[in-house]
Amino acid sequence: MSAGSQQLALGIDIGGTNTVFGIVDHRGDILYRGAISTKKHERIEDYIDELYEAIAPAVKDAGGIDKIKGIGVGAPNGNYYTGTIDYAPNLRWNGVIPLANLMKEKFGVPAALTNDANAAAVGEMTYGAAKGMKDFIVITLGTGVGSGIVANGQLIYGHDGFAGELGHTIVVAGGRKHYSTGAHGSVEAYASATGVRFTALEMLEKHADKPSLLRNYEQDKIDSRVVYDCAMQGDEIANEVYRFTGEILGMALANFIMFSSPEAIILFGGLCKAGDLLLNPTREHMEANLLPIFKNKVKLIFSELKESDAAILGASALVWEMK
Amino acid sequence: MSAGSQQLALGIDIGGTNTVFGIVDHRGDILYRGAISTKKHERIEDYIDELYEAIAPAVKDAGGIDKIKGIGVGAPNGNYYTGTIDYAPNLRWNGVIPLANLMKEKFGVPAALTNDANAAAVGEMTYGAAKGMKDFIVITLGTGVGSGIVANGQLIYGHDGFAGELGHTIVVAGGRKHYSTGAHGSVEAYASATGVRFTALEMLEKHADKPSLLRNYEQDKIDSRVVYDCAMQGDEIANEVYRFTGEILGMALANFIMFSSPEAIILFGGLCKAGDLLLNPTREHMEANLLPIFKNKVKLIFSELKESDAAILGASALVWEMK
Repeated sequence: MSAGSQQLALGIDIGGTNTVFGIVDHRGDILYRGAISTKKHERIEDYIDELYEAIAPAVKDAGGIDKIKGIGVGAPNGNYYTGTIDYAPNLRWNGVIPLANLMKEKFGVPAALTNDANAAAVGEMTYGAAKGMKDFIVITLGTGVGSGIVANGQLIYGHDGFAGELGHTIVVAGGRKHYSTGAHGSVEAYASATGVRFTALEMLEKHADKPSLLRNYEQDKIDSRVVYDCAMQGDEIANEVYRFTGEILGMALANFIMFSSPEAIILFGGLCKAGDLLLNPTREHMEANLLPIFKNKVKLIFSELKESDAAILGASALVWEMK
Repeated sequence: MSAGSQQLALGIDIGGTNTVFGIVDHRGDILYRGAISTKKHERIEDYIDELYEAIAPAVKDAGGIDKIKGIGVGAPNGNYYTGTIDYAPNLRWNGVIPLANLMKEKFGVPAALTNDANAAAVGEMTYGAAKGMKDFIVITLGTGVGSGIVANGQLIYGHDGFAGELGHTIVVAGGRKHYSTGAHGSVEAYASATGVRFTALEMLEKHADKPSLLRNYEQDKIDSRVVYDCAMQGDEIANEVYRFTGEILGMALANFIMFSSPEAIILFGGLCKAGDLLLNPTREHMEANLLPIFKNKVKLIFSELKESDAAILGASALVWEMK
């Protein structure tokens, strides 16, 4: 490592609602952390000004900007090659935003940008469950399904920086229509928090004569957490929702394995709170759909990073990859 | 390039029936070529002895073994990491065959081994349509469906050497049962020569009251070539067979693009003889299933390598990759 061990990284995760940041050392310890709203400013320049003001005291405390090797940013639709955020549907700034350049100009240190799932993969490789692995895939299971793919020890960005949209791959030809993309049968339409909710509503309607704890909730209150709670109380339909979700997710993971033959698949994000309720059927259907040469050798594990820290750690890890 | 320009590569492709070989220069010109039967010998040692005897005169003509930088071999279930052929169902030799080592001992030069689809990808990168590309996928459409994936300028082998089994990924959950793996709805069950035949038989049965030129053939004579010929004569069912094949293949290619975002997908193999009849519906459904950020930017092209030469070229190209 050419960087001195005293050098620090600034990790920033831009979410649809909040932006979180932290100053991180090589061991993955977060020395300072903070947050601002992502939604407050219409102009990207005003947002960056506020971000700078929020971070400046922490940088000063850490010994000044000379201690910061660079800035790593995770953002929806973040493009590693161009350093731009391209047409992110959940952010206020339209079109192509040259975020890495704006950050570099404002802070005076190098900046790298990628999407949040890719940042998560670099974070797992640097500080987490994928330490020492050269081939693995991180799947983020939240409102949507994201992914970061590492092969030969490198993140796969593709020719244009957009590789790794595994949530939008099709597993059920002609299947459920995605509420936003319009695609039929994509992984995200089933194996996301949103998908779990839709599956629950479908099953309640399909088995209208079957009692279920889920019927105690108004329809718009039924989410992946409520389904989990009911399943834990032994509710049959709620359990079937997670079993079905695992069936689709497992089939999708088998596809991903037959693509890049990873040593491990690391699951991350809100839906992972379901634990074995999701993991067991997922593993079963993953194995069932694999060619014999792939069976019983891919680790399917949850991330070891604390969810509250992972976004900052992942973004900061981009800095250690800088040439 | 550290190798002198006078250095040559020996490329060997082991097929289920025949083994073809050639001595190739850096430009991809095949100076000598030949073939032996793959099936004749029960013992791998006897097979290698015959192969050596067949190749020796060509090596002598080329200036002796000192001119040969190494041997590249493409073989079913060939594992790049271990140099072994592992449990290949279509070869006489059972279990794990240490082919690279056996070749190295016999010929006295380094030997590298991979599966035929990976060899095809290295061949396209070295001599063919993928020259200069760092991110592309080769799909071989023959009796089965194989694939070789290049990302960041490197072939993706995965943690165990078996990456790139895209033909076995599932696109139609619960779909057609694969005649050999038993999987339901895998790409190979539809988008292979075998798949085209099954689709034709299914459609003839489904539309039993509809006239078709295909009905002039006995069932076991209907293959992808016959379907093509009938389609070219305007037969409606035969055309529908290729349209449907393209629909499934296009959906699968969209999945592959959302995985590694390649600059191009290069199609290769017997089914490509169908030309636009296959290419047009494939491209249409590929584009239709892509997220907007991927649309209209991935080249879908046929290989430029002569089919008779491609296997030798692909295998030989492994030699230039040797350290």
